Amino acid sequence: MSGAGVWGYGLSRPHHDGSALYVSDPAPGIGSTVTVRIRVPRTAGFTGVHLRSTRDGEHYYPPTRVQRSDDLETWWTADLTLTRAITTYRWVLTGGPHEYAVLNAAGLWPREVPDGSDFRLTAYPPAPDWIRDGVVYQIVPDRFARSAAAATRQPPDWAVPAAWSDPVDIGRDVMGRQFYGGDLDGIIDHLDHLERLGVDVIYLTPFFPARSNHRYDATTFATVDPLLGGVAALERLCTAAAERGMRVIGDVTTNHTGVAHEWFTAAVADPSGPTRDRYFIDESGAYDTWLGVSTLPKLNWDSPSLREAFCGEDGVIRTWLRAGLSGWRIDVANMTGRHGEQDHNLDVARWVREAAVAERPDAYLVAEHFYDYSPDLPGDGWHGVMNYSGFTKPVWTWLRQHGLDAPFLGSPARMPTRPAEDVVATIVDFTSRVSWAALCGSWNLVGSHDTTRVRTLVGADARGVEVTAGMLMTLPPTPMLTYGDEIGMAGEFGEDGRRPMPWSDSDWDEQILDVYASLISIRKTSVALRHGGLRFLHAQGDAIVYLREHPDETVLVHLARDAHEPVRLPTEGLPGVAGARSMYGPEVDLRDPTHVVLTATGPGVRILSWATPASARPPWQESS
Amino acid sequence: MSGAGVWGYGLSRPHHDGSALYVSDPAPGIGSTVTVRIRVPRTAGFTGVHLRSTRDGEHYYPPTRVQRSDDLETWWTADLTLTRAITTYRWVLTGGPHEYAVLNAAGLWPREVPDGSDFRLTAYPPAPDWIRDGVVYQIVPDRFARSAAAATRQPPDWAVPAAWSDPVDIGRDVMGRQFYGGDLDGIIDHLDHLERLGVDVIYLTPFFPARSNHRYDATTFATVDPLLGGVAALERLCTAAAERGMRVIGDVTTNHTGVAHEWFTAAVADPSGPTRDRYFIDESGAYDTWLGVSTLPKLNWDSPSLREAFCGEDGVIRTWLRAGLSGWRIDVANMTGRHGEQDHNLDVARWVREAAVAERPDAYLVAEHFYDYSPDLPGDGWHGVMNYSGFTKPVWTWLRQHGLDAPFLGSPARMPTRPAEDVVATIVDFTSRVSWAALCGSWNLVGSHDTTRVRTLVGADARGVEVTAGMLMTLPPTPMLTYGDEIGMAGEFGEDGRRPMPWSDSDWDEQILDVYASLISIRKTSVALRHGGLRFLHAQGDAIVYLREHPDETVLVHLARDAHEPVRLPTEGLPGVAGARSMYGPEVDLRDPTHVVLTATGPGVRILSWATPASARPPWQESS
Repeated sequence: MSGAGVWGYGLSRPHHDGSALYVSDPAPGIGSTVTVRIRVPRTAGFTGVHLRSTRDGEHYYPPTRVQRSDDLETWWTADLTLTRAITTYRWVLTGGPHEYAVLNAAGLWPREVPDGSDFRLTAYPPAPDWIRDGVVYQIVPDRFARSAAAATRQPPDWAVPAAWSDPVDIGRDVMGRQFYGGDLDGIIDHLDHLERLGVDVIYLTPFFPARSNHRYDATTFATVDPLLGGVAALERLCTAAAERGMRVIGDVTTNHTGVAHEWFTAAVADPSGPTRDRYFIDESGAYDTWLGVSTLPKLNWDSPSLREAFCGEDGVIRTWLRAGLSGWRIDVANMTGRHGEQDHNLDVARWVREAAVAERPDAYLVAEHFYDYSPDLPGDGWHGVMNYSGFTKPVWTWLRQHGLDAPFLGSPARMPTRPAEDVVATIVDFTSRVSWAALCGSWNLVGSHDTTRVRTLVGADARGVEVTAGMLMTLPPTPMLTYGDEIGMAGEFGEDGRRPMPWSDSDWDEQILDVYASLISIRKTSVALRHGGLRFLHAQGDAIVYLREHPDETVLVHLARDAHEPVRLPTEGLPGVAGARSMYGPEVDLRDPTHVVLTATGPGVRILSWATPASARPPWQESS
Repeated sequence: MSGAGVWGYGLSRPHHDGSALYVSDPAPGIGSTVTVRIRVPRTAGFTGVHLRSTRDGEHYYPPTRVQRSDDLETWWTADLTLTRAITTYRWVLTGGPHEYAVLNAAGLWPREVPDGSDFRLTAYPPAPDWIRDGVVYQIVPDRFARSAAAATRQPPDWAVPAAWSDPVDIGRDVMGRQFYGGDLDGIIDHLDHLERLGVDVIYLTPFFPARSNHRYDATTFATVDPLLGGVAALERLCTAAAERGMRVIGDVTTNHTGVAHEWFTAAVADPSGPTRDRYFIDESGAYDTWLGVSTLPKLNWDSPSLREAFCGEDGVIRTWLRAGLSGWRIDVANMTGRHGEQDHNLDVARWVREAAVAERPDAYLVAEHFYDYSPDLPGDGWHGVMNYSGFTKPVWTWLRQHGLDAPFLGSPARMPTRPAEDVVATIVDFTSRVSWAALCGSWNLVGSHDTTRVRTLVGADARGVEVTAGMLMTLPPTPMLTYGDEIGMAGEFGEDGRRPMPWSDSDWDEQILDVYASLISIRKTSVALRHGGLRFLHAQGDAIVYLREHPDETVLVHLARDAHEPVRLPTEGLPGVAGARSMYGPEVDLRDPTHVVLTATGPGVRILSWATPASARPPWQESS
């Protein structure tokens, strides 16, 4: 099975990842020497360990040495000196009954495999600490909350006004125009809720003036929609958030604007005008759009003035960071700068990055990406992606078994149901193709304003939501939830799920809220959950078990989508587990000295934590 | 298992590849519409077929339709319009017991997989027909044959002269200097041998003046080594070859020159001279080299004058094509243009391609590449690679089981022995990451002047050579053999295998020669072996079975590295097989109407051929 090589998962499998237990320097530069380390359990039987890397296009094998060895395992180390921005490497294991194996980020293989999933170190700065430690909460401003001022505003001409208690109208003629009138001060009014929930990064879908409720069709990037409270409200929100240790991220469309955008109307009005070349408009006035949607003209990144308008000192990217944002989510990042034979995608990512960090060094950029993001994420542009491919989609296929016959993100095929082995293989397959830094700079999510709501997806039994929340809060990278997920908000698809947030507790599923709050709190207090490595131990049918390992703490996570046969893990492979404490879920009986036995009578999450034993401590920490 | 998805191989598996049965246009341009087709056996159980491609970075699903359907299988088609140079696609199959599957070039998957192995069409011209129809014969000029004139030449000052019957001296102090004095007219003298063998493309290792027997340390690119007969001898060879319908390919070092190269000596003598910037020479006079070998200074492709010297109208590439060569093999192509943070590799490939086709439109370029070549082979530079990773290495691990404990191409690990399932998985894994055109523009080889000789690798039983020759001549792409392989020449490693070709028949293994000549002749007469698709049917332990399918002919190949349990293939999955004729190897008893039973009592090769039934004929051939 791909994603595991032939050995599958388990405590016998040699392991390496990009975390602090295995790599000495999480943010090396060109010229840095990085020590990498591999754990080889005795039971694996290998006697030789080599490291293969590449220099100037040629493979080479830096010398390896045994760093420590005991009855349980041998740790080997090697030093890698970075000569270019991206350095890839893999381990080659020899001897013993298996004779030969390759360990890369996709698994352990009995044979040669291509380089695409080799481990990789990059000399690009990783995502800032605040996002890697954060939990993101997505808000669609029109749907989250109305401040007192909202009632005083006139709905715009394009709008179909709705009362807060009205159901979402999914009719094609109304969708996009139904206007609830939520605003930014409404968010400020409810920061208490966010703080209680434990989230600390607010990701706002667009706040620019537009002609739709979702505002992905901006009419200008120069101001904040007065319907949301204008620039002052954004500044108030950023300040109020900061006072609670929270940050705010904006959402910008680098791929297109609205048809009523001031750049576009000027371009149409004056073919020789300065904004004409920012679009693809031919002599007849016909223009290219986002996927044929006539209200969304496509931007042309050949245009120097477009680059300046976005990335210049007073461009879109920097202006709103200066106003208080901490970063940007880039809409349709996968299409940005791509048009027929033109492909500026990686350039746009770099230009936006340069602008963002010039304005604030700890700025953060995350790309919307529904596909294989590995070619678009070298590390010098977006810090990370919304991990639909390597998390959302596989998790859905695991947890929809009693749930919705749902669409599968744009595919004409319906979403299949899959066992844990396929789910984990998919997660590993996608995430193995980017650096550990790019993975950790990304967001995991089980849904967004663009998708089915998780509460609807899992079907009648709300424990399915608990399992998805459990995965979200115990895996790398940073979790993102959508407003309302935490109270069990339903929705069969994107628009249907963008319901107004009910502010009467009676409409809330308090049990689900407790689940989210507890799991977020656990993540916040666990260094292993936030910064640890990831070592899958079991993935079969209804059960997934993994370790999050950090020099100071080891966490074991057990997820069950249903009742399953007990999973038995040899205790000797889990040094320190005898002192484990339960962080979440049903207790485990640890009195059997030979095995940790993980049982499940139905869907659920179990989290155990213990102190990582000194024997696993990396040498670079011993000497410091 | 990766390389097969979960379904493994077999006649039940849906199939698509880049060949004429499945793709309407082997050389489309941007704007072309290409019809692609998939074969879905009834036994696979799928009821829906979708095609997924990508446009401007976004996935889309062109409509699919049933082209024909019978009791055996359903053929679906779809049209793809190329909007950029590289178009990727995959099939998504739904319904039936499996519910959901993805078919890409790496296999059939029960889940989402990244895009790296999606099928790909490119708008770059493929390799010329002559190489795709050819069989390549590698010659090291010093070791192949001496003409009468050779005896009259004085050995150079650096040489340790050897008599033709002397053994190769592998002592470190002599290696590289031992000089046998073979020359280009010597090759002309033996074209009869090549013609009888059936090869038609001569690949010469370097013919430039140098200070070693291998000549990879050129002292100039401006002439042909007088020790080989000079420019006139090269022209004579090209003419003599052409008269027999043969072609000649040269070998050029774009990565480095010799330390005695006229460019380098001038650069050292005059720091401000015009060739100084072609190398990496610092103020102290220290210079960068190929892997620390001081006699091989590394070339710097930042230098405009270097680009002109290689790729200009009178540059190296064009000059020798003008003199009669049909193409170039590029030495150390994987390192060319790569130096620390500098990476001009893809640019160099493009520049060389532009120069070559400007001189002769049917010029061919093949890159030496020992690693994962997929990132270096988009299709606009080298037409193909020497397929060490996707053929040589996996084949070695299959056939060395009774043979040599051999080195593994630069790895500190020894070569493992692997069963057929791992071998085929590796072949599929590497070859799935390039376009069908780039695969078919490459060379398969079981050894070269740089490696162990196949005769030595397989051990005592010469039938192992037959099996490797069988694979070489029945798989895509173009086969290459090294002079002497065809007579059973031995050699434990590169230098050891560069023995002088014995021209007395008594030193030849005539049985091996017959094997090569027969198999080459079969390839030459079989359109399916040269142009057919590739559909693996079985890969387990000691047996590999595959089909080569072409609209006019279907060929079944059965390879055994040892006696094995019979492989039983349902006859109904092989329409037309009742009329099969044996092309090679033991007859198959086809009287059982239900199964083709493939048996093996030891190592061997079996090839069957039959007319592809009309039911499989592609619609684009029917209408033409």
